[in-house]
Amino acid sequence: MKKPLILVTNDDGVSAPGIRALVEVAKKLGEVVVVAPDSPQSGMGHAITIHHPLRLHKVSIFPGIEAYECTGTPVDCVKLAKNVLLKDREIDLCVSGVNHGSNASINIIYSGTMSAAMEASLEGINSIGFSLLDYSFDADFEASKPFVESIASYVLEHGLEHGSLLNVNIPACKREDIQGIKVCRQANARWSEEFVEAIDPRGQKYYWLTGKFINDDPKEDTDVWALENNYISVVPSQHDLTHYHELANLQAMEKEITI
Amino acid sequence: MKKPLILVTNDDGVSAPGIRALVEVAKKLGEVVVVAPDSPQSGMGHAITIHHPLRLHKVSIFPGIEAYECTGTPVDCVKLAKNVLLKDREIDLCVSGVNHGSNASINIIYSGTMSAAMEASLEGINSIGFSLLDYSFDADFEASKPFVESIASYVLEHGLEHGSLLNVNIPACKREDIQGIKVCRQANARWSEEFVEAIDPRGQKYYWLTGKFINDDPKEDTDVWALENNYISVVPSQHDLTHYHELANLQAMEKEITI
Repeated sequence: MKKPLILVTNDDGVSAPGIRALVEVAKKLGEVVVVAPDSPQSGMGHAITIHHPLRLHKVSIFPGIEAYECTGTPVDCVKLAKNVLLKDREIDLCVSGVNHGSNASINIIYSGTMSAAMEASLEGINSIGFSLLDYSFDADFEASKPFVESIASYVLEHGLEHGSLLNVNIPACKREDIQGIKVCRQANARWSEEFVEAIDPRGQKYYWLTGKFINDDPKEDTDVWALENNYISVVPSQHDLTHYHELANLQAMEKEITI
Repeated sequence: MKKPLILVTNDDGVSAPGIRALVEVAKKLGEVVVVAPDSPQSGMGHAITIHHPLRLHKVSIFPGIEAYECTGTPVDCVKLAKNVLLKDREIDLCVSGVNHGSNASINIIYSGTMSAAMEASLEGINSIGFSLLDYSFDADFEASKPFVESIASYVLEHGLEHGSLLNVNIPACKREDIQGIKVCRQANARWSEEFVEAIDPRGQKYYWLTGKFINDDPKEDTDVWALENNYISVVPSQHDLTHYHELANLQAMEKEITI
């Protein structure tokens, strides 16, 4: 049987520890090609680079694995992989991460890791974003590897519905404390922002984004609840942003606004 | 009655013609504050700036209107408006645009204009993104103004469901050719990407993103259909990306993957 072709990407950059862990898992499951940003791209959301050109450089970081760093965003990496590097081949799976820090709940929308996975899904590729709830460079990805492998194998075997991708978050606890996997919905949480205001050496004011994660959604079927209770959260996500309930409510607008 | 407070932003930058048209409409409806990027930010998606500080500069562009340009992304603009400039006030409406070019269908996910509107919606603010299907600097925004005013007035009067925002796209035809407003869903379309490959003056290869919009969704209840038939499309959109149908399908995974 032909080995599956697996595209690996992330948003923390090609030299982050999290992508090394993901490559080590992926190469057990298939042929791996890595295309990842050459610098950290956290918080880049679904940004694409249109105003200037992109570069791809082959790198020797993962022994025996074909790998490239890209000057663009995580979404650019997926577009270049699909449409340039692998344009004559079928990609069986895209895995993005393992991200340093949570992409649960509303974080999905700001996350370069998840946007890369979503771009692959838009291209019709089965796709998963993985994140570990530990922001540090020294985060221990070892404990996560068996779960990453199980979930990636499941998707390779069963596939996902067209237009769906998985947002997988892993609690930062010991392996024996993990309670299992919860398939759940995105919690309705948000960031309460504050900006650090300060004065630069030239006497000019600047602002630096900071914030606090607020969960207003106490129910037990959410990713935030699962993670707080030491479950691995698996949220099937999509790119159709239509609010179908509001669609029905708004039919009145068509009549009320006359042209 | 107190005049509503209206935040105006965009992604084409504070000096683009489209935002001038939007300010002119908004000032008829309430008190206007403008916070917009100091440079074009198309395709920035939901990117936020976390690795370096942001600046805000007051500008004199719209007579009698308080306006600022920001060094960050469209989403940064909304965060700074809500949490710094207007932190002690309630914002009644956020309008973003008028974008130069379509944000229908999957474009919403790459669009800085729509991401700014979505960020306002995340903050609990009624929010609308407007786009005109004309990319040129000389696009004629005059014909759009009455529609922008009608839709913004409707939202000010009726409000939107929590977590919902509107993605409004306007065909680039004469006013008399506009057929009306269609409340519709996001078409399931995509970009078929190609990259221009070329060699720079130093002999190094580079790639530049280009692409073709492909609509695989021929039904008549979509934004793409509405626009092709000279209707203004209004898609209620949301930030909950959970794929609820796939959520049910995946319950089997919880049992199959044992920890």
